[in-house]
Amino acid sequence: MNAMPSPLQQQAQQLSDSVTRPIPGSRKVFAEGSRPDLRVAMREIAQTRTPTLFGGEDNPAITVYDTSGPYTDPDARIDLTAGLPSLRARWIEERGDTAPLPGLTSEFGRARECDARLDAVRFPARTLPRRAKDGANVTQMHYARRGIVTPEMEYVAIRENQRLELLGAAGGGGRHPLLMQHPGQSFGASIPARITPEFVRDEIARGRAILPCNINHPESEPMIIGRNFLTKINANIGNSAVSSGIAEEVEKLVWAIRWGADNVMDLSTGKHIHETREWIIRNSPVPIGTVPIYQALEKVDGRAEELTWEIFRDTLIEQAEQGVDYFTIHAGVLLRYVPLTAKRVTGIVSRGGSIMAKWCLAHHRESFLYEHFEEICEIMKAYDVAFSLGDGLRPGCIADANDAAQFGELETLGELTKIAWKHDVQTMIEGPGHVPMQLIRENMDKQLAECGEAPFYTLGPLTTDIAPGYDHITSAIGAAMIGWYGTAMLCYVTPKEHLGLPNRQDVRDGIMAYRIAAHAADLAKGHPGAQVRDNALSKARFEFRWEDQFHLGLDPEKAKEFHDETMPKDAHKLAHFCSMCGPHFCSMKITQDVREFAAGQGDATGSNADAGDVAAAGMAAKAAEFRAAGAELYRPG
Amino acid sequence: MNAMPSPLQQQAQQLSDSVTRPIPGSRKVFAEGSRPDLRVAMREIAQTRTPTLFGGEDNPAITVYDTSGPYTDPDARIDLTAGLPSLRARWIEERGDTAPLPGLTSEFGRARECDARLDAVRFPARTLPRRAKDGANVTQMHYARRGIVTPEMEYVAIRENQRLELLGAAGGGGRHPLLMQHPGQSFGASIPARITPEFVRDEIARGRAILPCNINHPESEPMIIGRNFLTKINANIGNSAVSSGIAEEVEKLVWAIRWGADNVMDLSTGKHIHETREWIIRNSPVPIGTVPIYQALEKVDGRAEELTWEIFRDTLIEQAEQGVDYFTIHAGVLLRYVPLTAKRVTGIVSRGGSIMAKWCLAHHRESFLYEHFEEICEIMKAYDVAFSLGDGLRPGCIADANDAAQFGELETLGELTKIAWKHDVQTMIEGPGHVPMQLIRENMDKQLAECGEAPFYTLGPLTTDIAPGYDHITSAIGAAMIGWYGTAMLCYVTPKEHLGLPNRQDVRDGIMAYRIAAHAADLAKGHPGAQVRDNALSKARFEFRWEDQFHLGLDPEKAKEFHDETMPKDAHKLAHFCSMCGPHFCSMKITQDVREFAAGQGDATGSNADAGDVAAAGMAAKAAEFRAAGAELYRPG
Repeated sequence: MNAMPSPLQQQAQQLSDSVTRPIPGSRKVFAEGSRPDLRVAMREIAQTRTPTLFGGEDNPAITVYDTSGPYTDPDARIDLTAGLPSLRARWIEERGDTAPLPGLTSEFGRARECDARLDAVRFPARTLPRRAKDGANVTQMHYARRGIVTPEMEYVAIRENQRLELLGAAGGGGRHPLLMQHPGQSFGASIPARITPEFVRDEIARGRAILPCNINHPESEPMIIGRNFLTKINANIGNSAVSSGIAEEVEKLVWAIRWGADNVMDLSTGKHIHETREWIIRNSPVPIGTVPIYQALEKVDGRAEELTWEIFRDTLIEQAEQGVDYFTIHAGVLLRYVPLTAKRVTGIVSRGGSIMAKWCLAHHRESFLYEHFEEICEIMKAYDVAFSLGDGLRPGCIADANDAAQFGELETLGELTKIAWKHDVQTMIEGPGHVPMQLIRENMDKQLAECGEAPFYTLGPLTTDIAPGYDHITSAIGAAMIGWYGTAMLCYVTPKEHLGLPNRQDVRDGIMAYRIAAHAADLAKGHPGAQVRDNALSKARFEFRWEDQFHLGLDPEKAKEFHDETMPKDAHKLAHFCSMCGPHFCSMKITQDVREFAAGQGDATGSNADAGDVAAAGMAAKAAEFRAAGAELYRPG
Repeated sequence: MNAMPSPLQQQAQQLSDSVTRPIPGSRKVFAEGSRPDLRVAMREIAQTRTPTLFGGEDNPAITVYDTSGPYTDPDARIDLTAGLPSLRARWIEERGDTAPLPGLTSEFGRARECDARLDAVRFPARTLPRRAKDGANVTQMHYARRGIVTPEMEYVAIRENQRLELLGAAGGGGRHPLLMQHPGQSFGASIPARITPEFVRDEIARGRAILPCNINHPESEPMIIGRNFLTKINANIGNSAVSSGIAEEVEKLVWAIRWGADNVMDLSTGKHIHETREWIIRNSPVPIGTVPIYQALEKVDGRAEELTWEIFRDTLIEQAEQGVDYFTIHAGVLLRYVPLTAKRVTGIVSRGGSIMAKWCLAHHRESFLYEHFEEICEIMKAYDVAFSLGDGLRPGCIADANDAAQFGELETLGELTKIAWKHDVQTMIEGPGHVPMQLIRENMDKQLAECGEAPFYTLGPLTTDIAPGYDHITSAIGAAMIGWYGTAMLCYVTPKEHLGLPNRQDVRDGIMAYRIAAHAADLAKGHPGAQVRDNALSKARFEFRWEDQFHLGLDPEKAKEFHDETMPKDAHKLAHFCSMCGPHFCSMKITQDVREFAAGQGDATGSNADAGDVAAAGMAAKAAEFRAAGAELYRPG
């Protein structure tokens, strides 16, 4: 490491204010677990009191799941050149089944370390990686199947519950009104009212959920992916040959998790893939995924036919020792499926899939990923890297949806899942793509049947091809639906899809669209507590608690900005209208008038009467009066 | 009229370039009907030839439905102070059942005409309105039920077919590949392969579709709303007390139809509602809707309790004589339903609904809209104004979805539909609102059952409350689904929903989200020809015909702008990659390489061989070679 910080290091020493200023209205809180070093980060949104005019009552703080890590915690000291605190290091050490390595195992990794030309871009504070001791299997699935509840599993259980227990009973007994929720339709999911560590263990043991947490990524805040948990989203970052440097990618990471990405994939295909990834993982509180074939392809200068199992194997180890939490591996692109794509409208749209197809054809051999799959499992289980079995043959347009190539690969992924589970390697299955709405359900049903309920992780799907520039929307529609049907994680699509590399604004837009899709899915599934935030926000809206409404939204900054475009003054935050309708036409204002009027007319039922009850009584009394006076209800015709 | 044009008139004399420049890649075309004055405007998107590298073939021009009117036709002469040509005037006159009035019928209208203070804002070129001759009923439903196919019905049939017949058979017989489409799931709709004027007549006669076309809006290009036709969208414009003048609203109209609004509602609640509406209708090629209670409320200075049937009646006539094509009338907000909203989280969120609720409570009487409903029908049928029966009690948050107030009103709307149909008044039914996904289907089923299959016209629905700033997306999800289930028209929601009056950018964003939802619904329903545009665009994408891809998209300007952010040069439009992946990693580029390679290896089958077949044969040959060589397919485990 140089004594003098490089320009990159200097840049990194300050993240821009836009990615670290606290999220308006929220403060970081921690829920305590069963041991002092188990503190689960969440966000708490305070609310103001309901105005006396509308009944005057306290409104509870709302706890929400938080992916933004220490970056939005004003008490945290951020130093990107040092990386985040190693939250899980002690838990990993205590398990006693891993040991630090004397050096890097991968050839490529060692070569990079010694290359002085990379000093300016290398992450400064690297420590030696760990690996399983001989014969040990260190995956969360391995522990789960042995009945062990790890600290990671406990962390996740606390995190998923979002401190709903604080909403307790309303004064006078009964459920808190904010907990009121429509029954869901979960298509056979099994979501308990309260997530316990034991439930987490059981779901992981069955393979129905995964907890991606490489032993070399101790900085990560544990999270879980599975249909019986909150629906998760993934954002993609990463440079290409045509765009973007390391500092920009790190900032995209922090930006992405600020807005709500549960996981991030680094899909870099440009310069310094290895170094970029190191900076990202060391500073990421969320699991990081990669597609190792990209870097393998870079090592052979873009000539797919020159890929070998050995190069790929070394790449897996290199990346596992950096701490990548899951690998997308297109082991289902078999030689016999490639001809099935010949007549497709858009062929093979997966980068990894097209690379493997090219290799298979050039060598006229079966995929080396498929052939060496068990050896891959041996590597994964030594570090606890999870599989994301890639959908290399996903449809890239509506016309190609649900074709033989796509479903053939899915069947093979099911076969590979069984093999992975033989090794207790955590596994999720990637999915489409471009699928019109009437064909989405079939994808979910087939995946459940073929893959033993392993978590499904789809890219959208896009429900039409005709809107380049708006594919975050074409796909949010499909993603919400497939999330409802049981998909566990939704990979985001930005407005730049099909057109270019996304910038920060695109990343934000993509994440917002996907947070919406994921939450819409949770509501539809009837996920316990999902409706709390909707209820709280709508109550705030109805009571004209504008700041509370903004703070409870997914994007408090945008909501306020939009409101203030036409009504910017502080006094406007107390206004009982906005510029949509103005003071005379605001329906909620008029509704409040109506309730007040009716309450004034109703019986005096004492000071504890519920305002809604009094209004209802008042209105009903008036209606009764009307009928009793003999006025017939007009019945035309 | 003043000799000297007012500032408003001067402003109007030039629409900004942004709303009138031709849509990139499109040209206006006209399909001829059975008479010389029946020419249906559409847009044709030319395509370039497939590069020789990829097979070298012509690509047909694609015809798409076009709502933009003469504004995007470089041959049209636009003069906003004169209004659009009266396309339908002769058809109306020929029917012989209407006559021009000697003056305006409504008191208010006459008062406005004489008020010199309004000279500067009055539309200059007004002519006298028409009305049905005594005893005549001039609705399209009335004609339809008498077996008459009007020119409007013929226009609509041609328009809906989108000149699909031009795609004819591919060389060598069989369907054109662009016509390939996945079978849909239409939940019992009855969409024929080809729309005939007789089919249109029958759908209108049954009440399953409406063709909104006031005899005083002869400038409108006929369009149809019904589940067996293309899914339509509506955009809202209009000022409020807090924002926006006449020129801005006219520009919003032209902007909205440019991007694809099938209908526009003028929801003005601010100054000069009457004059604003005149400018809008005279210049609108699409049907215009209003909510007459808003203007009625303005006439009583915002005091809902001072509304009377007489004021409302005069307002209906005033607006009908201007040419409004459909009225939203909240005749289902009955006294007995109002108490059912007392315990709601967001009460009554419909402006009209809250106004009527206030009136009913204040007078403790049944709604005057309900009481006088048949008199309203008598007015409507004299001008052919359609009902949009308002959902004044729609849910304004997830918690209130599908409650007794909402469904009670829906039942009453069903009852009122029957009455309207007794008078042959065209009728559609408005719908929600905020509804979580698992509750959407119930809305459609109930509406079909209660309202005799009258077209459903929903506002979204929004599938979650938690994303102010992004409600075009929360609602596009619900809109796509309810469109799939059978909703005929989707009323858009912009990013400004709940926060303020939308500006031009918001209008564009809302329309794009809703064009997406409507098209996704058409695909899912299996609407004949819906997939043509998706197929054409995806083929262009795969062949790196960048400009064709942009031109075929819903928003050619944005697609190109996004692409050019990172790859702006002309040469880039020939590039076989974009900045997402760069030249080595573009999967479609690699796929093309794979196909080329395989075709090179395959049999020489003669110059007419289909490239896909040759590639498939080549790849299959390689795979067979592999197996024949004795190499076993590795079968792990």
